Amino acid sequence: MTHKAAGPEIEQVIQLLARLPGLGPRSARRAALQLVKRKQELMSPLAAALQQAAERIVVCEACGNVDTCQPCTICQDTRRDPAMICVVEEVGDLWALERASVISCRYHVLGGVLSPLDGVRPEDLNIPQLLARANASEVGEILLALNATVEGQSTAHYLMDELEGSGVSVSRLAHGVPVGGELDYLDEGTLAAAVKARKKL
Amino acid sequence: MTHKAAGPEIEQVIQLLARLPGLGPRSARRAALQLVKRKQELMSPLAAALQQAAERIVVCEACGNVDTCQPCTICQDTRRDPAMICVVEEVGDLWALERASVISCRYHVLGGVLSPLDGVRPEDLNIPQLLARANASEVGEILLALNATVEGQSTAHYLMDELEGSGVSVSRLAHGVPVGGELDYLDEGTLAAAVKARKKL
Repeated sequence: MTHKAAGPEIEQVIQLLARLPGLGPRSARRAALQLVKRKQELMSPLAAALQQAAERIVVCEACGNVDTCQPCTICQDTRRDPAMICVVEEVGDLWALERASVISCRYHVLGGVLSPLDGVRPEDLNIPQLLARANASEVGEILLALNATVEGQSTAHYLMDELEGSGVSVSRLAHGVPVGGELDYLDEGTLAAAVKARKKL
Repeated sequence: MTHKAAGPEIEQVIQLLARLPGLGPRSARRAALQLVKRKQELMSPLAAALQQAAERIVVCEACGNVDTCQPCTICQDTRRDPAMICVVEEVGDLWALERASVISCRYHVLGGVLSPLDGVRPEDLNIPQLLARANASEVGEILLALNATVEGQSTAHYLMDELEGSGVSVSRLAHGVPVGGELDYLDEGTLAAAVKARKKL
């Protein structure tokens, strides 16, 4: 549906915003309206910030993270433990782990999960690069921090097989009851995993 | 919370996106991630579209609409009925009426509603300009298309009082059961309005 009341410039903004996750056509219009109403404090700064980010962002050749330097800030950070590589599916997962700041190591972003049905093969992901990094002498442990989904777990299994014999120890995140979670609201799979991995007190 | 994994440029994009309606900090991060992943097709075009819109958008001096020409496309459109002015709270309401394309008249955007508690007085809105327009000889009807909220309706009452004696006929939108609405899900206020305004068949 075209939108005769707004000019083509606003229309273009609405259509691009509607392609962001979490925004449909209606909320994209609301967001555009907000941008129009707050042109000085919001629209112009966002245009400039996006422009700057688009110009400077690069994908780290070592780990697949996105940053504005090459290699990325994390790969350059010498205070991080060089013996550990944490493997994640997407950059968003890396961000989540960094926000939690429970780990201080380098990462490896796969860029997705294996999915034979969708035609995603190991060479379509950052897997060959991971196997090469695993052979570096300083790497002692690879933590597979993949999503606890079917695809995430089968990708983890594949990686485990591939990494066998490389001499590094391979680990995965624990499964169980999320902190703050109520048993009544958890699915059977989580409960089963939590019982199976129960700890002696 | 600062976000050490992403560069300051991405951080800036996230913070600005989080100020849009419908996007919180978490969904702003997801949106930013999508922008980063699709730099060529999404981030750069959005930056350019926002930049262009920010440069060209002006508020129509006649009606308060936003457009890229002065007066706006609607005010310039001579095919519209010059005898009617449709008064709305915000530009988004104008867009909604134009999408429905049930009316072909000029608009007047108040820019909000009266709210003595929040210190919004008539002179803070586009009300003086509306009263001036109502005195133009060609204007015969003013349709108050304000929201059916307490503030919207009390603003409508205020305008009705002010427009009394100007010789124009003042109308408001009908209240009742929304088309497609089920009685079971409607509030008492809507049902009462629908019964009170019932039509003979």
